[in-house]
Amino acid sequence: MVDILHRIGIKASVDKVYTALTTREGLSSWWTDSTQGENKVGGVLKFCFSAAGVEIGGFDMKVLELHPAKRVLWQVVEGPDDWIGTKVSFDLKQNGDHAIVIFKHLGWTEPTEFMHHCSTKWAMYTMSLKALVETGKGAPNPTDVHISGDGPD
Amino acid sequence: MVDILHRIGIKASVDKVYTALTTREGLSSWWTDSTQGENKVGGVLKFCFSAAGVEIGGFDMKVLELHPAKRVLWQVVEGPDDWIGTKVSFDLKQNGDHAIVIFKHLGWTEPTEFMHHCSTKWAMYTMSLKALVETGKGAPNPTDVHISGDGPD
Repeated sequence: MVDILHRIGIKASVDKVYTALTTREGLSSWWTDSTQGENKVGGVLKFCFSAAGVEIGGFDMKVLELHPAKRVLWQVVEGPDDWIGTKVSFDLKQNGDHAIVIFKHLGWTEPTEFMHHCSTKWAMYTMSLKALVETGKGAPNPTDVHISGDGPD
Repeated sequence: MVDILHRIGIKASVDKVYTALTTREGLSSWWTDSTQGENKVGGVLKFCFSAAGVEIGGFDMKVLELHPAKRVLWQVVEGPDDWIGTKVSFDLKQNGDHAIVIFKHLGWTEPTEFMHHCSTKWAMYTMSLKALVETGKGAPNPTDVHISGDGPD
């Protein structure tokens, strides 16, 4: 098993970051602009991506844990094969005027090229989360930054 | 052992990317603006970072492998304790009009918070490499983007 790990600091309260991680409005403002589903423990969130107006896939995440201002844990229940069963967590802690976000995408079976790609993308999305909370404007599902060159992203 | 993994595509030839990875001018245009040392197998490259004009540390990398247009491998010989002995590799392959870069920072003993931080930073630096090669302007040692909030970076 291999994991994707990131850490950022956001000049804000952990409460504000938690809101961006646990509301459809928040999630669709930094990750993907089409976020549906129920944000409650046991509920399923549906994150859908599109390119040039065409839906290109996405992920369904079961919400496993919600600890206000502290922790969010999801498990992938639909999506690319490599993602099924993996878990995504955000742990928060206040450090002075910054909320520290420890991000993990846990349980990849193999370090495939796609996993390498997702690692870079998650870094961009955590920076989008930071921008959203600090400035009010994130970069969800960006169509202007293509990190791969051989796919729609 | 845990690893940091990233993947990007750069709209350029692998030769051009290889040059950015193996010349002091290239390295100091996307990673850190103070790059010294000898870029040859067995040589040591010295990457130094500063903040507000003050040197804040850096990394010495021994060059272990140089395969033109294909692969670069360094090993950290001086730097933060967590980095000593770890290896950094860049594997390149051409995919149509894009050079695909597979980045690895291998051999971390523990998934410390600092490792999470470095994972995010390496994503930013690989995107800086992409910007440099594609546009002529990278973001080495950026002083305008502080991802942590509790340190100089």
